[in-house]
Amino acid sequence: MRPLLHPSIADITLAGILHALSDPIRAAIFAEIAGAACFQTCSAFASIGDRAIPKSSLSQHFSVLREAGLIRSERHGVELRNTSRCAEVNDLFPGLIPAILSAHAQDAQRR
Amino acid sequence: MRPLLHPSIADITLAGILHALSDPIRAAIFAEIAGAACFQTCSAFASIGDRAIPKSSLSQHFSVLREAGLIRSERHGVELRNTSRCAEVNDLFPGLIPAILSAHAQDAQRR
Repeated sequence: MRPLLHPSIADITLAGILHALSDPIRAAIFAEIAGAACFQTCSAFASIGDRAIPKSSLSQHFSVLREAGLIRSERHGVELRNTSRCAEVNDLFPGLIPAILSAHAQDAQRR
Repeated sequence: MRPLLHPSIADITLAGILHALSDPIRAAIFAEIAGAACFQTCSAFASIGDRAIPKSSLSQHFSVLREAGLIRSERHGVELRNTSRCAEVNDLFPGLIPAILSAHAQDAQRR
């Protein structure tokens, strides 16, 4: 089984974060994880709004979010439990994630 | 001569902005334009830091920034004069651009 890769804080870049969140589906997944009080499994995102997301794309989206340093995933049996790394990223780039999440909420409202 | 395309506010999206700024060179160009008191010509960016940027890449970078709604370009003879659209984008997504520019400054300091 492939190990799950989580970058250390020193390896988290602005470019990686912006790239990861420049996809509307990934931004929606991340907003959900960041706003959740407890871990979120990948299968909770089989649909975003009224759009079904194939399992393979979902797995790719989670890996981009993880490799950007935005989420932490842990394997529990067959499921992957995801939590946000907002606190760590906020130490690195204060205010960035809240500003993007708030823009995401506004962007979603307009559509 | 191809017309310069500037999206209307209604067509500016978070995804487009994050994609445009997810490239470190484009983020550096945009930070420079956003921080400048007057227009910046494209040729002012023939190098970013100590890195030379080919004219063709530069032109592509400016077009991505323009199409994301981040800058406004005007032709004056053979030169293109660029100004930021920060004020308009800030009305749309309050705080987003300042947060990204401040993260960009921090990111640049770490490298």
